[in-house]
Amino acid sequence: MEKPVRIALDAMGGDFGPSVVIPGANLFLERHSNVEFLMFGDREKVSPFLAQYPLLAEKTLLRHTDVSVGMADKPSQALRSGRRNSSMWLSLEAVRSGQADCAVSAGNTGALMAMSKICLRTMAQIDRPALAAIWPTMRGRSIVLDVGATIGADAQHYVDLAIMGAAMARSLFELERPTVGLLNIGVEEVKGIEEVKAASRLLQEIDSPLLDYRGFVEGDDIGRGSVDVVVTEGFTGNIALKTAEGTAKQIGAYLRQALSKNLMTKLGALIARSAFADLKAKLSPREISGAVLLGLDGVVIKGHGGIDADGFSGAIEIAYGMVSHGLLEKIRDMMSIANEPVAAVLGVGFDAEEAIERKADPA
Amino acid sequence: MEKPVRIALDAMGGDFGPSVVIPGANLFLERHSNVEFLMFGDREKVSPFLAQYPLLAEKTLLRHTDVSVGMADKPSQALRSGRRNSSMWLSLEAVRSGQADCAVSAGNTGALMAMSKICLRTMAQIDRPALAAIWPTMRGRSIVLDVGATIGADAQHYVDLAIMGAAMARSLFELERPTVGLLNIGVEEVKGIEEVKAASRLLQEIDSPLLDYRGFVEGDDIGRGSVDVVVTEGFTGNIALKTAEGTAKQIGAYLRQALSKNLMTKLGALIARSAFADLKAKLSPREISGAVLLGLDGVVIKGHGGIDADGFSGAIEIAYGMVSHGLLEKIRDMMSIANEPVAAVLGVGFDAEEAIERKADPA
Repeated sequence: MEKPVRIALDAMGGDFGPSVVIPGANLFLERHSNVEFLMFGDREKVSPFLAQYPLLAEKTLLRHTDVSVGMADKPSQALRSGRRNSSMWLSLEAVRSGQADCAVSAGNTGALMAMSKICLRTMAQIDRPALAAIWPTMRGRSIVLDVGATIGADAQHYVDLAIMGAAMARSLFELERPTVGLLNIGVEEVKGIEEVKAASRLLQEIDSPLLDYRGFVEGDDIGRGSVDVVVTEGFTGNIALKTAEGTAKQIGAYLRQALSKNLMTKLGALIARSAFADLKAKLSPREISGAVLLGLDGVVIKGHGGIDADGFSGAIEIAYGMVSHGLLEKIRDMMSIANEPVAAVLGVGFDAEEAIERKADPA
Repeated sequence: MEKPVRIALDAMGGDFGPSVVIPGANLFLERHSNVEFLMFGDREKVSPFLAQYPLLAEKTLLRHTDVSVGMADKPSQALRSGRRNSSMWLSLEAVRSGQADCAVSAGNTGALMAMSKICLRTMAQIDRPALAAIWPTMRGRSIVLDVGATIGADAQHYVDLAIMGAAMARSLFELERPTVGLLNIGVEEVKGIEEVKAASRLLQEIDSPLLDYRGFVEGDDIGRGSVDVVVTEGFTGNIALKTAEGTAKQIGAYLRQALSKNLMTKLGALIARSAFADLKAKLSPREISGAVLLGLDGVVIKGHGGIDADGFSGAIEIAYGMVSHGLLEKIRDMMSIANEPVAAVLGVGFDAEEAIERKADPA
């Protein structure tokens, strides 16, 4: 039997803490048996839930801490009060020390990101981490990054995002050569963002067997699923993600309103109810319950704060998939392979600014 | 009888040119009689359509030009070949010369923006124009700007956008004191965009009876209708708009797919069909068929390129509303009123950078 995947869980994270984390872990366990959990949290609060799932309890080491990061804590505050001893920090520390293969927390995003950066550090060659969302599309699923880890990006950071996103697509969707697009706007007269244009030129140079760069995409290409990986910087990515969530909620509300208009519409809705169940499943699938922190020296998954048990089991699923398919190794491999041809074409070492200047003036 | 509103129409604009513009104008005429049209386009192509609507023909002056801007033309190209003589340019020129009160074109956005800037120029005190979208929300409609006219913004430009958007909300929605929010991201540890933060501080100073600044909003607040006016710069705004459009299409596709699954769902859909008609109307209402070019010394409305006649009549409706409610005067008034208290508090004249520095260091 293979070595079990060891998953660290922040049992106190999210709006509902252990009341969602424990049943979520149990749901996951029903799908995957070769796994062990390392849970961090307040024993008094966690144990009663754990007691309800004897099989889960057999696979779980519960480590007590009475410190937890509040959902509304600022990252600086979380670091002051929760560094080294909070359930969130200890989950990350378990990954750093090698006791766990990955960590999952539905706790506060800012705190998780700040703690991850300090505890796990970024991978060699990567300056800044990214938050990658898994986005349901008309074709299936795509990865959109960065959705809020880092505001702004230079050309090199866009290239890093493309490589990390492609590695994630290879590992999560098991694609050989994921397609990658750079988010831009179509109004042509405006000057475009210089960094985005420069990044596009660099990505065109990367003739990698592991990444298929398709050029610019626009906002509506995300839902269309035009590419497997959509690259943008954290400010725009976060707003795109939230806007899409808002639009989905809005249309859901319109639909409910329209269907409850009169007896006929109510009857129709009742008869077609399996269709609405399908739609609901499509809009809140288990698979989109987590975002991935990329660029760290460790696998960390952030579950939505308001997640339910089924959703949390989906977040664990993502972590499990990343570990099983060797995400970190894939990123490391791609970083060297993808940058090699660019470096080869453009000069020794790899400096985006310099590379662009050289392109512009080949002499 | 009041003086008629004179509307200049680019009869060749959009994917379908006169075959949509003329029936659209006729639909509009059925709702508003006190109006005259000044149409620009190829007489041979326009006249046959106009001949079908005798009442419209009586209200229309058709001016011939055989030059039109292609939907795929780059702005620079459009300016080279269509400046001074294209149907688009002539529509704008009619506004500039006072022959028309406003112009409507479903032509290429980039070209329209470039030509508007040159032909009509920006209003005093406003450096750069903006493209404002009318966004359907759970509460009704909101204005989102900039959705693509100008990439990037400094604090002062955000303030200008807030003022122009509020003036538009006052004139289009007839609100006394529209609420205004600044689009930002909620992940708190990240450093935020400095300009957005600075703009927020400035907007807090504007204690105007004409504008109610509510602070930051996030992407999902747009669809929720949390504020009447959402302010952001053109890159993010364009991507948010396109992402929302993409999400709406995607959910529509999911819904159709789910409802055609089997006999039961098809039957239910048939019985509840009036609900789906309601939903469809809600998602493509006449009211969202146009975006407004703000900050120009003239009223210019951009209809979607792929617009139909009903949609185009909606774009004319927006232009008509703007003229009837004195949009330009409202913007001019607000520019002085809204900036006065800031100027009064912070020093003579109004310089955002300087104002912030003074705030930071009151000595």
